[in-house]
Amino acid sequence: MPAHFTPSSRVRRSPFFDSTVAEGVTSFTVYNHMYLPTGFGDPMAEYWRLIEGVSMWDVACERQVEFHGPDAGRLAQILCPRKLDAMKPGQGWYAAICDHNGVLLNDPILLKLAQDHYWLSIADNDLLLWVKAVAAERSLDVNVGEPDVSPLAVQGPKAMGVMVDLFGDKVRQMRYFQFRETEIEGIPILLQRSGWSKQGGFELYLRDGSKGRELWNIIREAGAPYAIGPGCPNGIERIESGLLSHGGDTDAQTNPFEVRMGKYVHLDAPDDTIGIRALRQIADEGPKRHQLGIVIDSEEKLAAHDQRSTVFRGGEAIGMMTANAYSPRMQRNIGLSLVSVDLQPGERVSIDLPDGRRVAGQACELPFL
Amino acid sequence: MPAHFTPSSRVRRSPFFDSTVAEGVTSFTVYNHMYLPTGFGDPMAEYWRLIEGVSMWDVACERQVEFHGPDAGRLAQILCPRKLDAMKPGQGWYAAICDHNGVLLNDPILLKLAQDHYWLSIADNDLLLWVKAVAAERSLDVNVGEPDVSPLAVQGPKAMGVMVDLFGDKVRQMRYFQFRETEIEGIPILLQRSGWSKQGGFELYLRDGSKGRELWNIIREAGAPYAIGPGCPNGIERIESGLLSHGGDTDAQTNPFEVRMGKYVHLDAPDDTIGIRALRQIADEGPKRHQLGIVIDSEEKLAAHDQRSTVFRGGEAIGMMTANAYSPRMQRNIGLSLVSVDLQPGERVSIDLPDGRRVAGQACELPFL
Repeated sequence: MPAHFTPSSRVRRSPFFDSTVAEGVTSFTVYNHMYLPTGFGDPMAEYWRLIEGVSMWDVACERQVEFHGPDAGRLAQILCPRKLDAMKPGQGWYAAICDHNGVLLNDPILLKLAQDHYWLSIADNDLLLWVKAVAAERSLDVNVGEPDVSPLAVQGPKAMGVMVDLFGDKVRQMRYFQFRETEIEGIPILLQRSGWSKQGGFELYLRDGSKGRELWNIIREAGAPYAIGPGCPNGIERIESGLLSHGGDTDAQTNPFEVRMGKYVHLDAPDDTIGIRALRQIADEGPKRHQLGIVIDSEEKLAAHDQRSTVFRGGEAIGMMTANAYSPRMQRNIGLSLVSVDLQPGERVSIDLPDGRRVAGQACELPFL
Repeated sequence: MPAHFTPSSRVRRSPFFDSTVAEGVTSFTVYNHMYLPTGFGDPMAEYWRLIEGVSMWDVACERQVEFHGPDAGRLAQILCPRKLDAMKPGQGWYAAICDHNGVLLNDPILLKLAQDHYWLSIADNDLLLWVKAVAAERSLDVNVGEPDVSPLAVQGPKAMGVMVDLFGDKVRQMRYFQFRETEIEGIPILLQRSGWSKQGGFELYLRDGSKGRELWNIIREAGAPYAIGPGCPNGIERIESGLLSHGGDTDAQTNPFEVRMGKYVHLDAPDDTIGIRALRQIADEGPKRHQLGIVIDSEEKLAAHDQRSTVFRGGEAIGMMTANAYSPRMQRNIGLSLVSVDLQPGERVSIDLPDGRRVAGQACELPFL
């Protein structure tokens, strides 16, 4: 789609926007009403930088829904169908936020900053509206809003080296999703071991939107010995790793069990947790669909499609392929699918691609790598 | 910003997508998780086509939040701080949906299809999450969802001619925002006298997403005698006409009184209407900001900025300019501002543009034209 973006004050710039322009950003998408860089002109270099080196990403569009106040802990538990009793400040937990029917609304990381202070680090929709409505309708004593917080991700096997150089050896002890509030050269950040890749790394949640350029430059400089370079959430790596893209891999009926989030649903969560009754019933009856990988037979590199494809077993439509890519490490075309539980890993399928072609393939467990 | 779009299955195509590509669309934005065409290569031709002729727009991204069931009327009243008692099926009313603090969340058209059936035709955010939460938390007997409905707008002074040719003389009697459910060559639509311009026109809400190309072609053919051509919601005309762009002209504190929506707030709406108590208090105390136009002195055509500018009176920052454009009809640079009520029409201001330039201008009432 060789079309340009039209800027609009409806779509916001990130604090790192000017830095990504200076780095030569060539494409964007829109995520949470913000520009999200999607490329810097050399997709293969960006892929291998993430897999073998270290990459820095403007993911300021990963917005935070903040709630703060005496009832914040209660609100967190109402929103998340996962028992939160054991959660401690400084921890981040992956959460399957559902509606009252058990439909997955968003798959954020819940960060507990203090007993009375939480963030939901969200995927691409206005979960803020949901949280505001629930808090107000239940008359909870809590303030809900979007703080001035903009994550910058440092991802890849060499990310640890960069972070150790900046913050010292203690970052090695941080467990996945653990975080701490700190600063760097006077810039307030929250440092978390996290990021939307399986290559390891950290996210620096910038807490002062006026300091984007400074933070970018600090990371750029600290990463220079490791040949750090710009990148972005990687469409190939995330398929290889089976990371969920909410809104892309899900539809208006998807529940957490369908997309491998069942382990984050605790059926013994309190009864006033939104969706828990519906989720118990779905668990009892068994979900109707599940997410599988597909390895496509084709030897040539297929285009990554932005539309869903129908997946067939024999002549029967049994679901959809939601994303595909050519994996340089597997040297295969691979895809993510949401299909009937009748389809099992190992079975043969065919796929009608949006460009009109039909290809064959084989279902498999996720992740690919 | 000479950057490209990266397609993603997270961002959906409209049923009219292929038609707009065939028409030569050159740019997009993202609106409600869908591509919205923003240009076809000749901005001035597109502007004058809207002002003097007739233009057709893919506004499928204007999504509907549907609620249906015994409590639908009750839910509509809970959501809209405007007395709905007198609303009849077939009417559309502009609504200022607010949160419990009176902050404007969205400015949709509420369409009443039947006593138990409504649509909210929304601006750019996930109001669906808000409506779902409120309906469920209040245990209302209603189904809330997003139907397969995709508006196509026909706008401009010659739109009436096209519609009369297609639907007969009776469309002349339709009042603004009035609609009827009908079909055209077997394609189910809802036909409304509406559209995001002040040049007159209609919106055809396509109710079968598989028929986008057919509907586009029917309008294209019927419009040929009137020299119809492609266009899109026009950034210049909407500023001239003072039409609100929610999320662009508003911020996280904006209430309806600040953006000239006070007449759509009925302070005697029922007490269980969300936000009504806060709105009564704001009305009582008087809003702190209001929306004014600014006519900029500069003779040269200024670029349309996608970022907000600070507006000063003397040395004092008194608000922001949220959008600007060069008006071909006024032959002036004009802008929309959200400023302190201390600033009155006729007063002089200066504006720090995002490109670093400072320009002078004069505040005025809206609309410009």
